[in-house]
Amino acid sequence: MKAKKRSAGPRTDERVERSKKAVLTTTYELLTKSGLSGVSVDEVARRSGVAKTTIYRHWPSREALLLDACSQLASRPPVPDTGSVRSDLEQLACRVAVRFREPFATVMPSIIDAAERDKDLAELQSRIHAEMRRALVTVIERAQERGELPKTQDAREMVAGILGPIFYRRYFSREPLDEAFAKKVVERALKSAESVVPRSK
Amino acid sequence: MKAKKRSAGPRTDERVERSKKAVLTTTYELLTKSGLSGVSVDEVARRSGVAKTTIYRHWPSREALLLDACSQLASRPPVPDTGSVRSDLEQLACRVAVRFREPFATVMPSIIDAAERDKDLAELQSRIHAEMRRALVTVIERAQERGELPKTQDAREMVAGILGPIFYRRYFSREPLDEAFAKKVVERALKSAESVVPRSK
Repeated sequence: MKAKKRSAGPRTDERVERSKKAVLTTTYELLTKSGLSGVSVDEVARRSGVAKTTIYRHWPSREALLLDACSQLASRPPVPDTGSVRSDLEQLACRVAVRFREPFATVMPSIIDAAERDKDLAELQSRIHAEMRRALVTVIERAQERGELPKTQDAREMVAGILGPIFYRRYFSREPLDEAFAKKVVERALKSAESVVPRSK
Repeated sequence: MKAKKRSAGPRTDERVERSKKAVLTTTYELLTKSGLSGVSVDEVARRSGVAKTTIYRHWPSREALLLDACSQLASRPPVPDTGSVRSDLEQLACRVAVRFREPFATVMPSIIDAAERDKDLAELQSRIHAEMRRALVTVIERAQERGELPKTQDAREMVAGILGPIFYRRYFSREPLDEAFAKKVVERALKSAESVVPRSK
């Protein structure tokens, strides 16, 4: 009896949430399996069992759906705060190396490829990337406040020095990408940050 | 009269070479315009005016044609030998940064994306990449022989430290990629090479 008395609101919300989750999960699975070009709203509707009209009620376009699915995948990593810039950076670099062994990583080149010819997707890519980078920038800036790194150090250049070699091994040279490599990359970034003297322009 | 007396050989060869060049150029143009998925042998035949059967006589598969077109694009850079590892590496890093502003660069993500799901293309990608990397490895090894860099320095790790941040800016963070950045990357790589002490395992 009690259940019957509940208003329709919460139950509808639950159903809506369940549908949305099914759509996002299906989109993720399709992305992983066939890349960006394999994801059509038709196919997502067919596989998730959620009506196309319902999908379009929540996401105005295929791009919006992809954006949402990807930003759910690229969950913001917790920002470590061990008190040592080296171990903070090592944690984050190793996390990226580990994630690059997951199916998620096979999706990224599809996004990059499509972004070369589509401004909306280029925007999607840079938003996902900014999420990925934010924790590293925070850790570097905290180390600068503590005096562990020089304030003259450009945080984004240092991030390029850490993420660059990891991305490079995963997607370009296709060499082994393990924790040992991630830690070496951090070591190099720290050494060069200490010794790079900013040049006057 | 003289022309008529010439054997058919050289003239046929010339015609064959002209056809092959037309096919490779067309393949390159299609790659640049529409990415890997835009290149079909049908379309190459249509646009180049070379018969499909002729194309298949020279390249047994679409992949072989792509491999050839790409390896022509990724021409082996001349290896600089200025006597200074810094200026050798700067030349090579700046060359990559400049090439990444050319249409050629829009093709690479297509290859990477397809390579995630296709072993033949992964092989094509690593061959193109090895060409790209060879000059850097040579320059580093020469510097080690001259004593400019420690012999314990892993050349491939150093290459990852130079090409990584450049690739990263071009394809991931999509930040400005200019000569100044390429030179800073080299500076960082050299600083970290000097000071990174190899750990015993």
